[in-house]
Amino acid sequence: MNPNLTTDRPTFVTHLECSLTGERYEADQLHGLSRAGRPLLVRYDLPSIRAVAPRAMIAARPTDLWRWRELLPVRRTSDIVSLGEIETPLVPIPKSGGPNVLVKDEGRLPTGSFKARGLVMAVAMAKALGIKKIAMPTNGNAGAALAAYATRCGIETIVFCPDDTPEINVREIAAQGARVYRVNGLIDDCGAIVGKGAAEGLWFDFSTLKEPYRIEGKKTMGLELAAQFGWKLPQAIFYPTGGGTGLIGMWKAFAEMEALGWIGSERPKMFAIQSSGCAPIVRAFEAGEEHAERWEDAHTVAAGIRVPKAVGDFLILRAVRESGGRAMAVGDPAILQAVEDAALKDGLLICPEGGATLAAYREALRLGLVDEDESAVLFNCATGLKYPMADASKTLDRFAEIDLAVL
Amino acid sequence: MNPNLTTDRPTFVTHLECSLTGERYEADQLHGLSRAGRPLLVRYDLPSIRAVAPRAMIAARPTDLWRWRELLPVRRTSDIVSLGEIETPLVPIPKSGGPNVLVKDEGRLPTGSFKARGLVMAVAMAKALGIKKIAMPTNGNAGAALAAYATRCGIETIVFCPDDTPEINVREIAAQGARVYRVNGLIDDCGAIVGKGAAEGLWFDFSTLKEPYRIEGKKTMGLELAAQFGWKLPQAIFYPTGGGTGLIGMWKAFAEMEALGWIGSERPKMFAIQSSGCAPIVRAFEAGEEHAERWEDAHTVAAGIRVPKAVGDFLILRAVRESGGRAMAVGDPAILQAVEDAALKDGLLICPEGGATLAAYREALRLGLVDEDESAVLFNCATGLKYPMADASKTLDRFAEIDLAVL
Repeated sequence: MNPNLTTDRPTFVTHLECSLTGERYEADQLHGLSRAGRPLLVRYDLPSIRAVAPRAMIAARPTDLWRWRELLPVRRTSDIVSLGEIETPLVPIPKSGGPNVLVKDEGRLPTGSFKARGLVMAVAMAKALGIKKIAMPTNGNAGAALAAYATRCGIETIVFCPDDTPEINVREIAAQGARVYRVNGLIDDCGAIVGKGAAEGLWFDFSTLKEPYRIEGKKTMGLELAAQFGWKLPQAIFYPTGGGTGLIGMWKAFAEMEALGWIGSERPKMFAIQSSGCAPIVRAFEAGEEHAERWEDAHTVAAGIRVPKAVGDFLILRAVRESGGRAMAVGDPAILQAVEDAALKDGLLICPEGGATLAAYREALRLGLVDEDESAVLFNCATGLKYPMADASKTLDRFAEIDLAVL
Repeated sequence: MNPNLTTDRPTFVTHLECSLTGERYEADQLHGLSRAGRPLLVRYDLPSIRAVAPRAMIAARPTDLWRWRELLPVRRTSDIVSLGEIETPLVPIPKSGGPNVLVKDEGRLPTGSFKARGLVMAVAMAKALGIKKIAMPTNGNAGAALAAYATRCGIETIVFCPDDTPEINVREIAAQGARVYRVNGLIDDCGAIVGKGAAEGLWFDFSTLKEPYRIEGKKTMGLELAAQFGWKLPQAIFYPTGGGTGLIGMWKAFAEMEALGWIGSERPKMFAIQSSGCAPIVRAFEAGEEHAERWEDAHTVAAGIRVPKAVGDFLILRAVRESGGRAMAVGDPAILQAVEDAALKDGLLICPEGGATLAAYREALRLGLVDEDESAVLFNCATGLKYPMADASKTLDRFAEIDLAVL
């Protein structure tokens, strides 16, 4: 049906590279972190892509994630895994946001979150490289995406999540075929268990940025934005930042597209948004540091960005600074208010992490960091349906004589 | 951004027509049911559309619902309401379904269900016609879609649902700005309250098929399928049937596309799927009746198809019979088994109503009504995330010495 999933197309990966030291690693082999303990980045033969894949050719394909094939690492078409990775829509929120604010609604992806972008790519590569068993720490949505894609291609999965992970996440992970364990700790405690098992050879470690392909999937957010904005980019991007894969990925996508001649040198101001209950990147940004210390006693209603320590911290900080943006923290009350406003005023139900970006946008407006006339994209990273809502219903008796005019 | 939402395009509505008697009604006026108490159908000047809107022109537009503008009733571009009505993907389920089975995943639409298609159109028309207050009976998803779109354009809404409507539905309806009442009865009891208030002039009645534009939105499912199948159609369609708007709408779309020269005269076998706990259409189909009696004591795990009496019964039965398809009922155990299989084997979480179509497909295969070689589309009408799932997690102590090899 969809030629993106069935047509053989040329691929262009040349090698992988340590994001800290630049050391080269071979393509098409199993990799975790670099020898320096940092994320690996996939590199492509961009001049050859430029010669064979003009942007107009890509734009004419069905608008899903796999149309970017020449910029992705999957070599064999038969290794593609898919649950329908559509291009996510940009939804205006004029009343709760402003006249030039668009929400990129990532909740429309398979398993209801943007984690699908990274995991569909990582699982396809795991399939290509013959991995049989994967483990992952998760705050919920990444585990759901991993379970769905791995199940689809027969890879076994074990998922560890903090014991206060939202119920619906835990249940959907199991429903989609993974084994799930709740751990009395945070995501890095879960990560320690995954790391120990990986060291013992029990499974492959799929932690954020510890395998190199999730970032390639996440970078499609940047590619899509360029296509949706007519090969320009918005003037500001507000991104809910836990591990930061998406922000790093978009920044990488912008550089690749410039090298391809698809976009110019202009960049959006990148705003990395955290919760004031867990804001290691904000603290490092404000202190002028290159790396971020672990945040102790992390707590926030936005569980997806409750990440005390990010292995790609320096990449996030670098992108934010180069772009002229900022790392910003918002409190839980502002987050919840933003979620309520978007639904009540614009009919758009967003997740708390998405609410954090709206709260931060308002604060940035107040501080003069952005202007109402500038185009701004807020990332709603998951469907609002996964999160608790108040019950505001009343009960009526169908047999009663009701004065309907007072309802 | 999206020209479908901002470009003025010609529109072609000529009139409305009673679906039972053919009596004509004027376009661009407020209408409920016809004088015969039956749904009104919107009619277009198809020869003129044929002259100005070739299918290749439509296909070149961004692939959302509003690209079908020439075949839709909204005249003024400024009346368009939108939360990002994307084209929903077709997801293969080779292990739980078969080699030629595709699930049309309608859970990706705004508010997580196919109800968005009908309601986005009905609300845009309500806006165009100056309606200020709307009431609706709902089993959940329609109310959520109504609330979101009406809130977005400042129309007041009151929603009545059975008191056992899934919690998440009730809550999202309220979160998106509607007033919600739970009624100790079924959807037709709720409908009676809505009808009474409408008769008193308190609000406009948005019950299924009681206003004429939801069907125009729902017919885009048929238009999309044609485009996705390269202007052919699948050989069989399995549709979860409550009020049946979508089935009626697709059948109408097929006729319109044939008149436009976009498709030929071949049609899919249409399978109207109900639950054995509420199967009025199946009973009428098997008895050779043209209309369906109310089903007493309706109960099923698939709340969306718990509709004891459908005002468009004869239209559903006509389409199913003309197509050489069948109305079929499946039991709750088969529904739940199908939901479990799709998630566990193919990584696709579907809703119970979607599960009913998979259970029915399996039964149709067994009965020889369809062949494994035939292309079949199953409609998953809502995201599986809205429905309860079992908790299969186990708990681990992060401080304990765990033998990870036994996990």
